[in-house]
Amino acid sequence: MIQESSEAVVMVIHGPNLNMLGKREPEIYGRETLEDIDRGLEDLGGRLGLDVKTYQTNHEGCMVEAIQATIGNHQGIIINPAAYTHTSVAVRDALLLVDFPVIEVHLSNIYRREPFRHKSMISDIVSGVISGFGAKGYRLALRALAELI
Amino acid sequence: MIQESSEAVVMVIHGPNLNMLGKREPEIYGRETLEDIDRGLEDLGGRLGLDVKTYQTNHEGCMVEAIQATIGNHQGIIINPAAYTHTSVAVRDALLLVDFPVIEVHLSNIYRREPFRHKSMISDIVSGVISGFGAKGYRLALRALAELI
Amino acid sequence: MIQESSEAVVMVIHGPNLNMLGKREPEIYGRETLEDIDRGLEDLGGRLGLDVKTYQTNHEGCMVEAIQATIGNHQGIIINPAAYTHTSVAVRDALLLVDFPVIEVHLSNIYRREPFRHKSMISDIVSGVISGFGAKGYRLALRALAELI
Amino acid sequence: MIQESSEAVVMVIHGPNLNMLGKREPEIYGRETLEDIDRGLEDLGGRLGLDVKTYQTNHEGCMVEAIQATIGNHQGIIINPAAYTHTSVAVRDALLLVDFPVIEVHLSNIYRREPFRHKSMISDIVSGVISGFGAKGYRLALRALAELI
Amino acid sequence: MIQESSEAVVMVIHGPNLNMLGKREPEIYGRETLEDIDRGLEDLGGRLGLDVKTYQTNHEGCMVEAIQATIGNHQGIIINPAAYTHTSVAVRDALLLVDFPVIEVHLSNIYRREPFRHKSMISDIVSGVISGFGAKGYRLALRALAELI
Amino acid sequence: MIQESSEAVVMVIHGPNLNMLGKREPEIYGRETLEDIDRGLEDLGGRLGLDVKTYQTNHEGCMVEAIQATIGNHQGIIINPAAYTHTSVAVRDALLLVDFPVIEVHLSNIYRREPFRHKSMISDIVSGVISGFGAKGYRLALRALAELI
Amino acid sequence: MIQESSEAVVMVIHGPNLNMLGKREPEIYGRETLEDIDRGLEDLGGRLGLDVKTYQTNHEGCMVEAIQATIGNHQGIIINPAAYTHTSVAVRDALLLVDFPVIEVHLSNIYRREPFRHKSMISDIVSGVISGFGAKGYRLALRALAELI
Amino acid sequence: MIQESSEAVVMVIHGPNLNMLGKREPEIYGRETLEDIDRGLEDLGGRLGLDVKTYQTNHEGCMVEAIQATIGNHQGIIINPAAYTHTSVAVRDALLLVDFPVIEVHLSNIYRREPFRHKSMISDIVSGVISGFGAKGYRLALRALAELI
Amino acid sequence: MIQESSEAVVMVIHGPNLNMLGKREPEIYGRETLEDIDRGLEDLGGRLGLDVKTYQTNHEGCMVEAIQATIGNHQGIIINPAAYTHTSVAVRDALLLVDFPVIEVHLSNIYRREPFRHKSMISDIVSGVISGFGAKGYRLALRALAELI
Amino acid sequence: MIQESSEAVVMVIHGPNLNMLGKREPEIYGRETLEDIDRGLEDLGGRLGLDVKTYQTNHEGCMVEAIQATIGNHQGIIINPAAYTHTSVAVRDALLLVDFPVIEVHLSNIYRREPFRHKSMISDIVSGVISGFGAKGYRLALRALAELI
Amino acid sequence: MIQESSEAVVMVIHGPNLNMLGKREPEIYGRETLEDIDRGLEDLGGRLGLDVKTYQTNHEGCMVEAIQATIGNHQGIIINPAAYTHTSVAVRDALLLVDFPVIEVHLSNIYRREPFRHKSMISDIVSGVISGFGAKGYRLALRALAELI
Amino acid sequence: MIQESSEAVVMVIHGPNLNMLGKREPEIYGRETLEDIDRGLEDLGGRLGLDVKTYQTNHEGCMVEAIQATIGNHQGIIINPAAYTHTSVAVRDALLLVDFPVIEVHLSNIYRREPFRHKSMISDIVSGVISGFGAKGYRLALRALAELI
Repeated sequence: MIQESSEAVVMVIHGPNLNMLGKREPEIYGRETLEDIDRGLEDLGGRLGLDVKTYQTNHEGCMVEAIQATIGNHQGIIINPAAYTHTSVAVRDALLLVDFPVIEVHLSNIYRREPFRHKSMISDIVSGVISGFGAKGYRLALRALAELI
Repeated sequence: MIQESSEAVVMVIHGPNLNMLGKREPEIYGRETLEDIDRGLEDLGGRLGLDVKTYQTNHEGCMVEAIQATIGNHQGIIINPAAYTHTSVAVRDALLLVDFPVIEVHLSNIYRREPFRHKSMISDIVSGVISGFGAKGYRLALRALAELI
Repeated sequence: MIQESSEAVVMVIHGPNLNMLGKREPEIYGRETLEDIDRGLEDLGGRLGLDVKTYQTNHEGCMVEAIQATIGNHQGIIINPAAYTHTSVAVRDALLLVDFPVIEVHLSNIYRREPFRHKSMISDIVSGVISGFGAKGYRLALRALAELI
Repeated sequence: MIQESSEAVVMVIHGPNLNMLGKREPEIYGRETLEDIDRGLEDLGGRLGLDVKTYQTNHEGCMVEAIQATIGNHQGIIINPAAYTHTSVAVRDALLLVDFPVIEVHLSNIYRREPFRHKSMISDIVSGVISGFGAKGYRLALRALAELI
Repeated sequence: MIQESSEAVVMVIHGPNLNMLGKREPEIYGRETLEDIDRGLEDLGGRLGLDVKTYQTNHEGCMVEAIQATIGNHQGIIINPAAYTHTSVAVRDALLLVDFPVIEVHLSNIYRREPFRHKSMISDIVSGVISGFGAKGYRLALRALAELI
Repeated sequence: MIQESSEAVVMVIHGPNLNMLGKREPEIYGRETLEDIDRGLEDLGGRLGLDVKTYQTNHEGCMVEAIQATIGNHQGIIINPAAYTHTSVAVRDALLLVDFPVIEVHLSNIYRREPFRHKSMISDIVSGVISGFGAKGYRLALRALAELI
Repeated sequence: MIQESSEAVVMVIHGPNLNMLGKREPEIYGRETLEDIDRGLEDLGGRLGLDVKTYQTNHEGCMVEAIQATIGNHQGIIINPAAYTHTSVAVRDALLLVDFPVIEVHLSNIYRREPFRHKSMISDIVSGVISGFGAKGYRLALRALAELI
Repeated sequence: MIQESSEAVVMVIHGPNLNMLGKREPEIYGRETLEDIDRGLEDLGGRLGLDVKTYQTNHEGCMVEAIQATIGNHQGIIINPAAYTHTSVAVRDALLLVDFPVIEVHLSNIYRREPFRHKSMISDIVSGVISGFGAKGYRLALRALAELI
Repeated sequence: MIQESSEAVVMVIHGPNLNMLGKREPEIYGRETLEDIDRGLEDLGGRLGLDVKTYQTNHEGCMVEAIQATIGNHQGIIINPAAYTHTSVAVRDALLLVDFPVIEVHLSNIYRREPFRHKSMISDIVSGVISGFGAKGYRLALRALAELI
Repeated sequence: MIQESSEAVVMVIHGPNLNMLGKREPEIYGRETLEDIDRGLEDLGGRLGLDVKTYQTNHEGCMVEAIQATIGNHQGIIINPAAYTHTSVAVRDALLLVDFPVIEVHLSNIYRREPFRHKSMISDIVSGVISGFGAKGYRLALRALAELI
Repeated sequence: MIQESSEAVVMVIHGPNLNMLGKREPEIYGRETLEDIDRGLEDLGGRLGLDVKTYQTNHEGCMVEAIQATIGNHQGIIINPAAYTHTSVAVRDALLLVDFPVIEVHLSNIYRREPFRHKSMISDIVSGVISGFGAKGYRLALRALAELI
Repeated sequence: MIQESSEAVVMVIHGPNLNMLGKREPEIYGRETLEDIDRGLEDLGGRLGLDVKTYQTNHEGCMVEAIQATIGNHQGIIINPAAYTHTSVAVRDALLLVDFPVIEVHLSNIYRREPFRHKSMISDIVSGVISGFGAKGYRLALRALAELI
């Protein structure tokens, strides 16, 4: 499920419902699909000297295990936990095990949405947060990660 | 897992622990098993001209994916998210992707139970809510859905 | 004011401002007037073997007294307390005196409206709640009541 | 509706649903009817040299007007606002107009009931509060009033 | 109860206990009675070309019905709901039915009084609020209404 | 410290700072000293056929032990826990051990004072509460106790 | 900056961003510029026999000093503190130093906007509040002030 | 996944991220791995006459199903739901189906950590709670269970 | 009051009303008296090589002093502060002075009782907490302490 | 226990656990013992013309009685109620009886500690508060008291 | 104070105390001074085809005016309001006047700091937020702005 | 604006509206003007061997800059931020840059005033707090500072 490489690797983890990106509500989330975004990140990673792996899951437990699997195999994480941002202590606990840079990304401006989306369970334990820039946010995160690693 | 039909289809989704229905605490939840309920809904669906599909899961991620799978394949959802009613932003996000009627059902009167059960994460985004009528509530929901579709 | 019958009787009680139904804001509440709804309930009651009585009031005290008057004379109540849903302890106290089934109905989805409408003073003491189905909700309630009595 | 006398007069005001006293739930509220209580108060009043008038209403507005009507005609009020205890600013405002002793009575122990019954809108503006003694509470209040007037 | 005129009409609605104005606590509310205020408003209305009708009630339900009765018959409302300002969803719902200007008036500065008086159930749905100017506030409201109609 | 009698006995327990009664702030608490009150209660007890014992303490632990000591020796308690009303779980726990009537008394109207005095730790477990009548409140409580025993 | 006159003078103080009035968002705030409003107030002041001075500032400290400067030189203040309404204890403290009438004005209905705008730091210490009438509100305030001085 | 035995059996359920025990942050959680703990529990179980089964999962739905699977097959549960302690209504609902003793264990002192860890969704429905003793806590729980069964 | 020994000593401190254990409400707390429990702990201590001292008090100040007295004389504390668990900062402050292991024990499941019992003032500063096991909890605590010392 | 003198006297009252001062945690509270502080205060008092008495207690009830005992015998109080600062209504009530200056002292900066220490039950009824200066705070308080008496 | 250019211009606004950057607490904020950061942004702007202007102020009113001054003269804003992020409605109101992209930047991870820093008054009205990357955050923002303009 | 000296210097900073001291409300704040206080502090400073500088401002930004200016030039700060005590994160941030003693002073007892004055934004980061002693508080602070430097 999660492949590993022998060189410097970055794991990009997408949370629940992001597999539907570009297929529904393009006026909010744009027309780029998750595949488009992942390809763009791999390309940009190549230019920045990073081996970019990507993973999407709708399951909290799988997100936990994807984070655990990076330990010893990757040098950075970009994570958009989507709905689990606001509810998952398990994802937080998994990220607490990691000792390399982690960047939190949100596509939309979570402060314009329902109050329960204003609270992130992980913001205080990540290296930085980028929010509101749509798919561009992942690319900004990758640039930032390239400097942090 | 989720079968599709070529005619008008309604998906009934049951949340965690509902697979135990009729097996434990019959004085609270009655003696009907989930299988009994599902058979009854298929029969009533037949009389109302609806093809009723049913699905039960204990996994939040699977409930998300069952909802995603209705898009393009079904014309209505009846959902009793059980415990996930009160905790799941992911289920809410999946339902936000859907543009046909969704009806929320609860077997017991959630307002007589613990305060954390008084809050539903989805009530404000569904077409209607039916709560407290036991298994009868699903049948009322199916009748309502027949009129809404 | 409240008439009684010698056979099985159901009282339908409508709260404040519901007398204006169908006359204002049809895009929200539909074009059916309260008279249309009441006639439809009487007809459906006839088919279900129930003698349906209806009553509308804008006065909290009158709603209390209409509930008191059902004791010994009726076998079920369908109540849409409208604004008094959220503020009336007196209506709650009157319903606590009743020992036959009571069903709470709301025309609109109260969870999409102002936060003070999310709280009902009676949900925890009624048999069941039906909310968000417009005038259809009364008819679903009558069907449910027919099974409960 | 509210009769007046030419000598020292005390008005006893009973709130909504107290007209059902002794007719429902005798295990909670006892078998004394409101009429029994009122007769007992008139008798005790006679022994204490007080002319006791009594009034029951289910209407907030009528309770307001009953209080207004005591001004200039009575020398004390015993009030059990029942449900309006917890919700009525109007009853509070009417009592603020009065400058003779007012005693608040509750039949049951309101602190054993739902949290919204723990708050009284009038306790801070009355002379004293007697709660939890059943119908006996009115008689204690009358004795207290006899000393205060 | 509520009279109508064939020309442009403004309804002034006074809430509970305002019938006692000028009779109690003149140091707070002044010595003007409600009748004095109403006469003054009729005179000023005449000078501004408005036919001013006035109405006082201690009953929430009557206030609701007085508001309903303006529909189709009046062109503006000035309302001082007094105690119902802070508790009545029913009055709010009635005002939501109206589509001409409504002005909320309070005699005293409600922010100097008990915290439960700081919250108005209608401020967010009226055209404007005037508070703290005593009886003068009604006259300012009438001037404002003359410009808004 | 606490003496016992061979006949029906009532224990009156006074909390911290009540030993200063009548000595400070007479305009609030009156000029009666605690000794005056205790003598008056013994007299009234005699007339009501009750043997009244009294006890004052400034110590939470001693109040707990005075309550424990009534078990098997007394038939009723009148308690004014003063400051411990609002803070003592230990006094509550001691009263939970008792199975005869307990009446809570407060001299002043606690709802007119600081918000932390509005909450009693024992009101929901006593037979009744009498508050705001000054020293008279003890005598009302003794009359009530005479009827309850 | 703040000019003084030898006759009865009223100071009108406008808070931050009001200098942009009429230049941005005319659909919300109208097309009148602050200069237009100030000229209109000077004219109306002339007719009412008041010498109207006006001042706008974006700085909390300058608003404080403008209020201090009125002491001994003016007989009334009309203030629209705009954003500082909700955050400034310093402006409140300055107004507490003043002993002539102060009227608070808001152009828009602050109860329709974000919750943090519902709270004013000064409403409880001013003579009156006028809110929601746009530029007209200043003129109503000037009329009210003319009566109060 | 979950094996069953024909004699008295105890199920030990470990929640998310506990599979990493002993591998990360040994200064907090000690150097014992989950395998070490499980072996120790089996040994101690043997001495206490209990057949100890163990199970770890990162998935909320799997924890629910592991609990369901104990019904009819086991006589006791020791559960450390880790992150799901604080967020899972589904785990609570599954435990509500069980009618033999359940003991809740936490390795670290949850009251020294973030406030959201102070609240357990299951503490009020289990037989007892043991928290803060590290791996020793499981062994204390097993001893307690041996006495309770 | 508190005796000391020349070898390794553990102090067991019981809070208010625990002296009544076994004498009242045996269905909740069991029939073991505090003396039974203390004898059992001394016996078990003997087997574990610990000199167990016990102390019960109803007085917050005495509990503080008992804790202070362990410094330099004991090697561990088992404390059930009972009611003072939820209210005593003084007991917390005394425990902060101690640098050997302290274990908090509760007989009943405090999470099933009133909300004010859910909060402990000391849980975050003790080594571990054992709650809900009745008198068995003390014995589990002694075993745990034996390993910690 | 508390001795009195025939000249102007100041009572210094130290709360629970302050008897351990200088013996534990010197890095936080310094190496001065309470005896050192008391001697220093007596010396400084002598230079300021004040007869300084000191008293330490771990018992809330004793603190109450020490305060009561100052009435008529002393002219000022310096009090550091330590833990009782945050929990004792009884100490507050005792201080309300006193009509000479009272100064509240805290050794450490209570705002840097747990949130429950940020609230003092007495700050609003004392003459002044000095906090965070260690033992020096008592000496500043004595100087202040010398000016106030 | 704020210079303008004839080509596409971006304004970078730094809030209070950022003028001390690099001079104090380098372990937290790094050794780059604000001048270093500004030079770096001008350089990067040049490469991205943007004319970068920079401005620092410690004054809320000046920040408001700097934002107003961009209207008509600039095409984008990068703003780090520092302390005013959490308190300034005035800055929010100024940004509401702007209709080109605005990016909010924070040097440190505000979610690791005091709770009052977790709330931003502007996050819901800006295009995006970048937080926790130190001075790098400005450069990421400039890249994002280059794409948005 | 802020002068410096070549010897040990202490800066006294007074916040908004303190320039009016002694001119308004002398019954609350006394008749000493700020000039009187500053002169007294310079004199006392001389006796204590401290060079006292003083500064008053109504502007938050100026207070920030006055604090910044002490770095490298002064050895201590006495600050009474007045209204900014309760609202200014910017002043807090400036004080966080300082590494010599800072003492917070309030003239009046802030706990007797409005609730929003009970919270200080700086108390947890200063050396100590002196509140309620009027102008004397500054002099106590200067004595304390003399010992701390």
